[in-house]
Amino acid sequence: MSDTVIKDDEVDIVIAALRSDLTSFMEDWRIIFSRFHLIIVKDPELSEDLKIPDGFNHDVYSKSDIERRVGSASTSVLFSGYSCRYFGYLMSRKKYIVSIDDDCVPARDDKGRLVDAAAQHIWNLTAPATPFFFNTLYDPYCEGADFVRGYPFSLRNGVTCALSCGLWLNLADLDAPTQALKPEMRNSRYVDAVLTVPARTMMPLSGINVAFDREVIGPALFPGLRLGGEGKLRWETVEDIFSGMCAKVVCDHLGLGVKSGLPYVWRQESGDAVESLKKEWEGVKLMEEVVPFFQSVRLLRSAVTAEDCVLEIAKMVKEQLGPSDRVFTRAADAMVEWIKLWKAVASESSTSAA
Amino acid sequence: MSDTVIKDDEVDIVIAALRSDLTSFMEDWRIIFSRFHLIIVKDPELSEDLKIPDGFNHDVYSKSDIERRVGSASTSVLFSGYSCRYFGYLMSRKKYIVSIDDDCVPARDDKGRLVDAAAQHIWNLTAPATPFFFNTLYDPYCEGADFVRGYPFSLRNGVTCALSCGLWLNLADLDAPTQALKPEMRNSRYVDAVLTVPARTMMPLSGINVAFDREVIGPALFPGLRLGGEGKLRWETVEDIFSGMCAKVVCDHLGLGVKSGLPYVWRQESGDAVESLKKEWEGVKLMEEVVPFFQSVRLLRSAVTAEDCVLEIAKMVKEQLGPSDRVFTRAADAMVEWIKLWKAVASESSTSAA
Repeated sequence: MSDTVIKDDEVDIVIAALRSDLTSFMEDWRIIFSRFHLIIVKDPELSEDLKIPDGFNHDVYSKSDIERRVGSASTSVLFSGYSCRYFGYLMSRKKYIVSIDDDCVPARDDKGRLVDAAAQHIWNLTAPATPFFFNTLYDPYCEGADFVRGYPFSLRNGVTCALSCGLWLNLADLDAPTQALKPEMRNSRYVDAVLTVPARTMMPLSGINVAFDREVIGPALFPGLRLGGEGKLRWETVEDIFSGMCAKVVCDHLGLGVKSGLPYVWRQESGDAVESLKKEWEGVKLMEEVVPFFQSVRLLRSAVTAEDCVLEIAKMVKEQLGPSDRVFTRAADAMVEWIKLWKAVASESSTSAA
Repeated sequence: MSDTVIKDDEVDIVIAALRSDLTSFMEDWRIIFSRFHLIIVKDPELSEDLKIPDGFNHDVYSKSDIERRVGSASTSVLFSGYSCRYFGYLMSRKKYIVSIDDDCVPARDDKGRLVDAAAQHIWNLTAPATPFFFNTLYDPYCEGADFVRGYPFSLRNGVTCALSCGLWLNLADLDAPTQALKPEMRNSRYVDAVLTVPARTMMPLSGINVAFDREVIGPALFPGLRLGGEGKLRWETVEDIFSGMCAKVVCDHLGLGVKSGLPYVWRQESGDAVESLKKEWEGVKLMEEVVPFFQSVRLLRSAVTAEDCVLEIAKMVKEQLGPSDRVFTRAADAMVEWIKLWKAVASESSTSAA
């Protein structure tokens, strides 16, 4: 069992503000968020001033802050819309990040108790992950659980968990076609489990409700795959899915774990899936190439940090996916640009700390 | 979505009788089992007559039936103790088998409703499995669920599910050391989910509560790894774990799916883990070799049936594991013997049907 203890001051809560009035969002989360430092990044395409209630310890980054740091060209390419949150990942100086979409409120569990999503994410990152053998009773480290008969003792220490992917009640994270076909569908099934996604298994990471160890895997969570007709609704984006598969490959390569399951958040109604469907099927089509690509990626032993791994994957994206669609070439360029920024910010911060 | 429909007369319920009085067990399961044909196999080491209540459509096989079919030498090697159930798998003429240990009773779900374990297993085998990409919202085919954003459409038809592994409330399926260390531990967490165990991920299959497509994967569920000091308690056996990993490898090779999760059964108290612990750590130690072995197995394309695959794996077991422990050589021999029996019974049955 791990001896990791995560303190509140080691965590940043990063919020991408896609709408100006955050009052009800922040009030809903007050009891959970107020013990942490918050980084709020305002979508550079949002013009109105943000409304943030008092009583939070927070920094806000807006368009001018982003432009000052990365230049105006990179601002719109990398950090507009949902992707503005990545600027918060970049600027954070904390070891851990928890990030939740601004259309979500705290969920209640199957017994009606309020779910502390931050506490559950922190627990997921504290306890080891077990990517090399599947435990049929889910997370073996949680209270009342253990490894089942047949689980090798040599694998029971697990590995560091670098990434925790939470889920959604009410409006599930479906793509536009599915949401349009089943407009009445709501997710009401509360599954009381956390599990390690096995090594070499690819999954669609959703950026709606995530937490991660910024120091080890931060560089692999980046704004890369931006769709031509990308809008301000989750189902019109795939940037998180693309970088999530990249992060999974990097975790597998570096011997780190990824968990999925608890905590849930409650996603509120938003947007019109049929309208989104009219706009484009581009993201859905791209997945047919993206998934086999990431399933086949094997990294060189010389890649020993997340930065190394992302640069190596960027090269493969350009070479293997680039010829089929320009969107992949742009994604590869964005990945390289992102790592340049990450290294620059890290080196400044270590200089200023020295 | 699959069009598979499983009729009651395509299913055998197989029960290994390790104790003579099955009255309370059968009464507890009556409402669930009585619509199916039952095969009850009496442990050849059990001398008393079985007590089975009226009102079930069942066949019973006892020591003399087994010996008549396989000879007295094979009877004790292959079919004593928990392994007697495999004789039921061999004699069944049905496409599907559901098998539940005789120390389990029907569980209740998190809302207090009785769980129909047979119906849930049949549903798991009816709906496709999705081994090639992980769906974060678990079984995408169950009511109220679907594939999440980012799941490739080309993988949404899934593959045939050949094996369904259920779980246990109350007494979980732990090994003797864990049970001895935590004598008070009981599993009370009802996780309302079924998931496909991803391709190439190994797992400890428990024989306590399983169902499978006998026609496609039956030959891969066999009595193979018998421990020297094997007793009449689950935690003193690994035969199901060993053949379960073999079955998983075979499913991966043949493009079939394996599911884990619902249904739960309620396992009653039994035995003394500390006593078992004194007896042997043999099973626990063997897993350190068995797991890496099965993780590394890759089968030839020429293996196109479960029988082919098991014979190929038996050869590898003998060559790669045999030198380290005689128990593996015996397991390999038992696998070959099992396939011989399976083929003989199948050929007789097809002759008699013709």
